[in-house]
This record gives sequence, C-alpha cells and structure tokens, in this order.
Amino acid sequence: MGNIFGRLEGSEPSAGVVLTGSHCDAIPLAGMYDGTLGVIGAIEALAALQQAGFKPVRPIEVMMFTSEEPTRFALSCSGSRAMAGALTPAELEAKTDAGGLHFLQASGAGYAGAPPASVANQVGYGAASTGEMLEAVRVAPEAVAYFVELHIEQGPFLEREGTDIGVVTAIAAPAALEVHFTGDGGHAGGQLMPIRNDAGLAGAELALAVERHVLGTGSGDTVGTTGTFEVSPGAINSVPREARLAIDIRDTDGPRRDSVVEGVLASAADIAHRRKVRVASRIINQDPPATCHASIVEAVAASAKQLGLSTKHMVSRAYHDSLFMARVAPTGMIFIPCRNGWSHRPDEFSSPEDIANGVNVLALTLAHLSGGSWPKVEL
Amino acid sequence: MGNIFGRLEGSEPSAGVVLTGSHCDAIPLAGMYDGTLGVIGAIEALAALQQAGFKPVRPIEVMMFTSEEPTRFALSCSGSRAMAGALTPAELEAKTDAGGLHFLQASGAGYAGAPPASVANQVGYGAASTGEMLEAVRVAPEAVAYFVELHIEQGPFLEREGTDIGVVTAIAAPAALEVHFTGDGGHAGGQLMPIRNDAGLAGAELALAVERHVLGTGSGDTVGTTGTFEVSPGAINSVPREARLAIDIRDTDGPRRDSVVEGVLASAADIAHRRKVRVASRIINQDPPATCHASIVEAVAASAKQLGLSTKHMVSRAYHDSLFMARVAPTGMIFIPCRNGWSHRPDEFSSPEDIANGVNVLALTLAHLSGGSWPKVEL
Ligand SMILES: [Mn+2]
Ligand SMILES: [Mn+2]
Ligand SMILES: [Mn+2]
Ligand SMILES: [Mn+2]
Repeated sequence: MGNIFGRLEGSEPSAGVVLTGSHCDAIPLAGMYDGTLGVIGAIEALAALQQAGFKPVRPIEVMMFTSEEPTRFALSCSGSRAMAGALTPAELEAKTDAGGLHFLQASGAGYAGAPPASVANQVGYGAASTGEMLEAVRVAPEAVAYFVELHIEQGPFLEREGTDIGVVTAIAAPAALEVHFTGDGGHAGGQLMPIRNDAGLAGAELALAVERHVLGTGSGDTVGTTGTFEVSPGAINSVPREARLAIDIRDTDGPRRDSVVEGVLASAADIAHRRKVRVASRIINQDPPATCHASIVEAVAASAKQLGLSTKHMVSRAYHDSLFMARVAPTGMIFIPCRNGWSHRPDEFSSPEDIANGVNVLALTLAHLSGGSWPKVEL
Repeated sequence: MGNIFGRLEGSEPSAGVVLTGSHCDAIPLAGMYDGTLGVIGAIEALAALQQAGFKPVRPIEVMMFTSEEPTRFALSCSGSRAMAGALTPAELEAKTDAGGLHFLQASGAGYAGAPPASVANQVGYGAASTGEMLEAVRVAPEAVAYFVELHIEQGPFLEREGTDIGVVTAIAAPAALEVHFTGDGGHAGGQLMPIRNDAGLAGAELALAVERHVLGTGSGDTVGTTGTFEVSPGAINSVPREARLAIDIRDTDGPRRDSVVEGVLASAADIAHRRKVRVASRIINQDPPATCHASIVEAVAASAKQLGLSTKHMVSRAYHDSLFMARVAPTGMIFIPCRNGWSHRPDEFSSPEDIANGVNVLALTLAHLSGGSWPKVEL
C-alpha cells in the first residue's frame, strides 16, 4: 500500500509494538501541519528518546500512512483502512484519479498507462494480487500493542482556552455522499424558463439543504459541507445539464449524524422530483465513531502533567487514520493548538512552542507505553 | 482576427457587398448545427445561385466569424465585435484562455509560449500592432450593404407551430455577469457551523436568486442562467473558500433585462453581507438589443413566400454575430426549426428538409438584395 515504517528496537523485539505516525499527503490549498506534524513529530520524539538514552522494552515504530486525504482517489485513509482490513481488492482496484490513473498504478509500482485489466495482477510490493497485497498490509493480531497519533486540533478550542494539550477521547463519525443531478441542458438564450430542468439549480438547492439539515439538529457538534460542486458543460451560455456534489457530514453522535445523512438523501430526491431532473445518490462511506483507549488517554494526560502542561479532554471532529487503527489496536491521539482553529487552508499554523510541547508529550507517552528504562541520573 | 471570407463577384465590384455567414466554433458538449448551418448553408446557397446561372449586381460574400461562442476567452462574438469596431486593443490583449494562452497567440500567429509583453507587437495577419489589426478588420463605411445570417431557431416555436421559416425582426439583449465570492475556507470536520463563511453556499444562494429575479419579471421572454459555477479548493473535506459564477441574462426588452441585472448584483451584495464573504461582481457585457432592417425582413418573407413556405415573424432570444453586424450594416436573420427547441447540447438537430428550406430562402434573399439577373427560361 505504500505505508512507510521506521523502528526503534526494544529489548523484547517480538512484543507488540508501540506505533505512532500520521500522513504527509494534503488537500489542494492546504497548510503545512495537518498530518505532517504527526510524522515529523514522531521522528523527533524517537530522536529525543534516543538522545536521552531511553531503552524501550516494546519496539517503537514510526509510520507514514498512504493517502489519508480523500482528494485524489475519493477514498480517505487508504493506508489505515488497509491496515484495519477495511478495504477490499475490488474497492481498491476500482479507484481512479481524475486522469483515469488507477490507485495501484499511481502507487509507484511502475505501471503508468497499463490497461486496468492488468492492474489487479501487477500490484507491486512483491505481491501477486491485490488481495494478497492487502492481506500482507493488515495488522496481525497483537502485532500493534498501542497506536498514538500527534495532530493539530483543526478547531479553535485549545487556543481559545489557552490549553497546551488536547487529550483525545473519541473521534467523530464521518460520512461522505456523492449526489449527481442530470437535466436536459439547453441554450441559455433559447430555452425559456418554464421548460428548463437545470441540474445546477438542483445542486444549489441541495447545498443549502445540507446546511439546513445540519443546523436543524440544534447541535453545535454536527457539521455538513458541500466541498465539491461541479456543473457541466460549465459554459456561461448553456443551461447546466449535470451537477455533481460531494457532501461531508460529521458528528460526535453516530445516530444524529445518520439522521442528517437521511435528511440530505431525502432532500436530493425531493429536489429532483420538483425540478424534474434525474438524481443518483451514493453513500461513499459512513463510518462509526471511535473511542480512544483508556490506557493511552491516561498515558497522554500523565505525560503532559509530568511536563507541567495544561490539558483538556476532547473529541476530534476531524477524522484521522486513528479512526481505523482503533479497530485493530488500542488507539489514542494528542492534539496541539492551531491558530484560529484554521486548517485545510494555506494559513494553517501552530507555533514552534506548541509543536515542541506536542512532541515532548508524544515522546513521554511512547516511553510510558513501551516500558523501558531511563539512564541513571548522575547526582 | 481570423474572420474568413469568400466572394462571388458582382457586375458592380465596387458596390457595397451582400454579406452572409455565421460561426463554426462551439461550446463543449454542443451540437452540429448552431453556427455551422449558417456557414455551410451560405456556401451552398451561393453554389445554388451559381448553378442556376444567377448574375449578381452587388458582390455576394460568405464569411465565417471567429469565436462567436464565449467559452474559450470569455468573450462572445469576437470576430463580429471587431468588425463593428466594438473591441479595443486593450480588451483583446487582456484575453487569455484557461491555460494562460493569449487570444492573439492562440489565433494562429505562431507565438505559442511567447511572453505576453511581446504579444501586442506580434499580432500576425501582417499588422504591426493590435490596434492596426483591429482597424483593418473594421467594416469600412458603405462596404457592407446588407448582412444576413441563417441559423437554427434554438427555441421550440417553429417546430411546435409547424412553421417552415422564422423571419427574425429583433435580437434579444444579452448581458453577462461574473460574480466571485471569497470566504475563509477551513476543515470540513473541525470548522464548526457558526464560524463558517462558506463561499460555495453564497454561490448557491445567488444561482437561486438569479432564477427568482427572472421569474419575478412575470415575463416569459426573460431568461437567466448560471452556466458556470466553480468552487475552490473543491475537496470534499474542505469548506469552499471561493465560488466563481458566470451568469447570463437576456430579454427582448432592454430595460427589463437591466432591472434583472441590477437585482442580481444587489442580491450578490446582500448574500455576501449576510454570509460574511467578500464579493467581486463584474459586468462582462450588457449589449443593447438589435432591430433587423425592414428591407431584409421583407426580402426574407418574400423569398419564403415565393418558395411556398410558411413564415413567422419572431425575436431571437439567442444572440448572434448579427447583433454586432447590425451596428454597421442593415442586418437580418433567417431561422429554421430545431427539434424540441434543443440547442447547445449533443442532440441538437434540424432535419435535412428544414435545412434545404433555409438554404433556398437564403439564396433567394441574397439574390433579391444583390440585384441581378436570372437566365432566361426556355419555354
Ligand atoms: Mn486533513
Ligand atoms: Mn490529518
Ligand atoms: Mn451558440
Ligand atoms: Mn450560433
């Protein structure tokens, strides 16, 4: 799959590892911190442990996940889904980017331009088939004792309250929908209003309905976004024939999130009926929320306390590879403040001080979870 | 400019010409008839006149206009605007396509990749500057005695009423707006609803407001279309930072059209204020309607009558190169039915019989306007 690992050996090499890491891929117009912090920060944490002479019992591994962001292949958390066994060969083989390149071709196996039929049998990484490759990527039972991810908050609360470290207790439940409206198009001058069935206006209504359903929950924790809105043919003098929307809905509460998903799908059908356009709606994913493991929550809180840092227990509204790692290993996350809560934008920022705090808490947490010994301090 | 001409000499070569033609460029996902009919049909009409042995007095010229559709350079009717003197060097030099190629580079002068600064002085077509080139393209006083354009109706009326030929009396007034909303974007999970300023939702509201303003006129002749709707960054997990809309508004009544334009601009400002996004609105063009010249209206009607075809006097709701030619010469148009009124879509269709009718009416109209003699019929 292209997940990349590094290892700091422990005194018990066969023990389940303490794993940490995140992703380095980014959406277009992104910032420098989402994901990357958790990879570079993990490498720094291990370096700090080594410099301090720490000797782990369980091996500690750093990793970088493949394609956490869903932008290129419309699939989030590709690497961690595969590690959790939540990805089938058929799903993966069907994934192409906007240029028609298959995931398995783009993954560096060297088959750019190869016909899709041959992809399934040429997956690289030494595997004979996609199924065999995915099987090799899965986390074996007990192989990962703990997974910890360091990440920027991507929300405003730590900064607003002047708190140093967020101790994540749960990860909100994400869902993604794709809605495709199709009308008959026509000439923007010649096609009079009563005979139009404008797919673009159906899309506009649905984008506003997403917002209305989310606000209708009355919950401050529910969010819904129409992040992709494409009309075709996309000419000023042509009535839109097609509109393609990609909609993201998340909540800390699974059933409440599901009620919004149902509301949006019902609105899509209703709008299509009223505007006489055809509609095809598809749920891309609708994952359950994840709970962080008590042993890691405690280790993170204790590490922060040991360093004199203030903490806040909180829920992650963004999803992460941790959402899937939680299915196969005890999982936890460490958040640091990010300016104004801004993320997924070029002015995303976390201060060097906050980054150092996060890396220090991660290092101590890994040491706690690994077990091991610090060098004797000369008094 | 790339306008292309062919000439059937008349017995008075220095007399103002009878000019006919249209365009062959098309929007994406277009049909085969819009524009092309008026070029190929004009060549056929001249061939028919020659075969019939007709000897014109005024020269008859066929032409193909450059870039009637505004899709590539966001400028409609480039060739006819230039002929009407309605295009400045600065406007033309500023036009680039999505790939950053300048109009003057793309026009075949062979400067692909040349730096923009050099474009103004290398316009090809033997001119030393864009200004000199545009001056050479302008129709000289009295040079064009009449302009006639054959076109598909792009509306349903001729077919619905079983009428053979539309005699166009006026061309509706088109306007084009560009509206650009900018918000702050953010992460689709982390950015809670109350602190969002989603540019995509501002765009969705405006697209629906365009429809509302148009329907609010109570007039069946007013149309408004949001044909282009682009959100950025366009990722499912990112709140849209930007939305760019291109809006087309047309009416047979200029002032009523202008009131819709004003309403849409006011809505854009109001939506931006309510949703706390920035807005930049720009009128790309807002052209007056054109009236067809009585002498051509009469010649078309007489020609159709002579051929035993039924006629309907009507207004063109689509615009055409005729809109600009009407500024420099007496102008008229001939419409033929098109299936279901569909245009600007791949299933655009006019029957071979209707095309033959249109070409025959055009041929006779050109003969009427040119003056001249038919061969003596042997009885
Ligand atoms: Mn992200
Ligand atoms: Mn991330
Ligand atoms: Mn057209
Ligand atoms: Mn046309």
